[in-house]
Amino acid sequence: MTIRAFKIIESTLREGEQFARAHFTPSQKAAIAQMLDEFGVEYLELTSPCASPQSEADLRTVAALPLRAKVLTHVRCHLDDARLAVTTGADGIDVLFGTSSAMRSFSHGKTVDEIIEAGSEVVRFIQSQGLEVRFSSEDSFRSEPRDLLRVYQAIDRLHPQRVGLADTVGIATPSQVFELVSMVRKAVDCDIEFHAHNDTGCAIANAFAALEAGATHIDTTVLGIGERNGIVPLSGMIARLLSVQPELVDQYRLETLPGLDRMVAAMVGIEVPFNAALTSETAFHHKAGMHTNAVLNDPSTYEIFDPARFGRERTVMTGHRLTGRHAIAHRASSLGLTLTDHEVRTLTAEVKRRADSGPLTNDELDDLLRGSVPA
Amino acid sequence: MTIRAFKIIESTLREGEQFARAHFTPSQKAAIAQMLDEFGVEYLELTSPCASPQSEADLRTVAALPLRAKVLTHVRCHLDDARLAVTTGADGIDVLFGTSSAMRSFSHGKTVDEIIEAGSEVVRFIQSQGLEVRFSSEDSFRSEPRDLLRVYQAIDRLHPQRVGLADTVGIATPSQVFELVSMVRKAVDCDIEFHAHNDTGCAIANAFAALEAGATHIDTTVLGIGERNGIVPLSGMIARLLSVQPELVDQYRLETLPGLDRMVAAMVGIEVPFNAALTSETAFHHKAGMHTNAVLNDPSTYEIFDPARFGRERTVMTGHRLTGRHAIAHRASSLGLTLTDHEVRTLTAEVKRRADSGPLTNDELDDLLRGSVPA
Repeated sequence: MTIRAFKIIESTLREGEQFARAHFTPSQKAAIAQMLDEFGVEYLELTSPCASPQSEADLRTVAALPLRAKVLTHVRCHLDDARLAVTTGADGIDVLFGTSSAMRSFSHGKTVDEIIEAGSEVVRFIQSQGLEVRFSSEDSFRSEPRDLLRVYQAIDRLHPQRVGLADTVGIATPSQVFELVSMVRKAVDCDIEFHAHNDTGCAIANAFAALEAGATHIDTTVLGIGERNGIVPLSGMIARLLSVQPELVDQYRLETLPGLDRMVAAMVGIEVPFNAALTSETAFHHKAGMHTNAVLNDPSTYEIFDPARFGRERTVMTGHRLTGRHAIAHRASSLGLTLTDHEVRTLTAEVKRRADSGPLTNDELDDLLRGSVPA
Repeated sequence: MTIRAFKIIESTLREGEQFARAHFTPSQKAAIAQMLDEFGVEYLELTSPCASPQSEADLRTVAALPLRAKVLTHVRCHLDDARLAVTTGADGIDVLFGTSSAMRSFSHGKTVDEIIEAGSEVVRFIQSQGLEVRFSSEDSFRSEPRDLLRVYQAIDRLHPQRVGLADTVGIATPSQVFELVSMVRKAVDCDIEFHAHNDTGCAIANAFAALEAGATHIDTTVLGIGERNGIVPLSGMIARLLSVQPELVDQYRLETLPGLDRMVAAMVGIEVPFNAALTSETAFHHKAGMHTNAVLNDPSTYEIFDPARFGRERTVMTGHRLTGRHAIAHRASSLGLTLTDHEVRTLTAEVKRRADSGPLTNDELDDLLRGSVPA
């Protein structure tokens, strides 16, 4: 299914702050905001000003920066919280209602009217202040769809910018996401935001399914950091979209992603995970013999992205026991050596034998190859 | 859709060896095989004996271990490779045909008959030796489905144990996987194996979609290590299935997963990624005020798995600026302190103020709480 235009709500400065190891200083927050703005995200979401005095100060500081991105903050659906939030300079307020325990009574049908009433009051107040407003449920996938739809349709009549669906506990499957977002898409006129946790490893796939079903806004964080094991990683979401509809990510500065991921990883004291799309140390690294042979002839055989687009280079590992004769021949040729097919086969066997004790360094490999021909 | 019984083909000792940082010693290979066997995987897949002398020796060693799991090896679809493989003591041989460049000519329709002929010869040979055999294409999602089906149907007439579909470059979306696997499911009688790379972050979701469409075998590695940024992680796949149909994973010793992930991470010199399901350091860590309050009352509010099932404990972080008064009240109560609602609110504000400069240690938090009431 063709995805229409969408926008990124980048929540490293809100959801990302909920990561166990995250504690961003004011200057780190400004640096993250600047780099995300340079990358080109449409929205930055920051922690509620009610969280702590410095949270409020940081929100005011970031909201005052000369950014192209709009600045949002994320507060409970309480009038007191909204009253503080609208004074901070933020362009919009994301409100969420209830907790999961409230959601349970909600799905019993007892508080739907109260939720609509409280939500409407807060939405109207934010609108009266001239700000964007999003209204979202928590834990949407363990709620009664009928109740959710009643609330969303009531809120939609107030014309908020967005309603939000959240897989708060990371339990949804892509097909469930497609189904629920499709249902909400038919029920409301406003935009739809989707927030996906990664507890079952499906955050990116779920966010993509939401876009296929008509969602318009996706929440991400740098590396996917967030509560527990996190949410949709920005780089991974870009990889997913780039592989399907590259025109959707044309407006972003993709070459800034590796630096962004490295910077935030250093701030929170983790490695960029080896499994990160586009930005991991090994994302463009080729090892097995069949792969290296093909990639040396035509990178598209085992690469769906051009690493240069992200300011990266492919690396081909040759001095190990899974190597192949084509990689050995390619390396010999790079060294200016001319070898017969028989010599290449013999040398490949020798590399494999030696590398069985551990990979050869590039120098060790080159010495072996050079030593094979008379000086 | 209800998933029927499925089996795990655990490929840490084959695909995992293709991870840039992996070089397993013979004793490490034996340790990995033993732990995966204790966990309960049905199959272990090892590197081709043609890769290097030690690869052959290690395969023979692991095949001779007293394991419940069947041992497979993975070779090119060449008779020479198969002849060596069947002498190693392995229970079955996984063959794959072609490379992506071969796949391109294949999808031009020029070599379908040759592939069928070569594949049939190798499959028949392995069957004549009394071993299980799987026949798989590479890069199945960039091939002509019509050509793929012709090959699979021809091979299926020989009654192999399995045919395999591989998203070798990690480009498929869950809905594409569902569609292609459904098509193959209708076309063949034998079992169907699915192999998913993670270049666009969808390996787990894609493997799950394959099972929903009728695949019977899923390839995994510990942590998901493999070529480039890897494949389906064992723990993540278990989390996905456990959240949907817990009976599917009843037979596995789930409590061994954290140790398995830590062991392999240490062997290859990486951290267990923070985003790993079930086994990451922070997978059961709760930080934000709303979350900690709910989790202290009822863990299921923000946890879809009981950490005890994996030999783990939840952790609740209280001394930081996103904390909430319920978490503070809970901690005070644990210390035997009796505080009024007003005192809790005042203390919560004080914790947030102090923690704005950085999280408080548990001792610092406890001292603050104890200091709040007369001795």
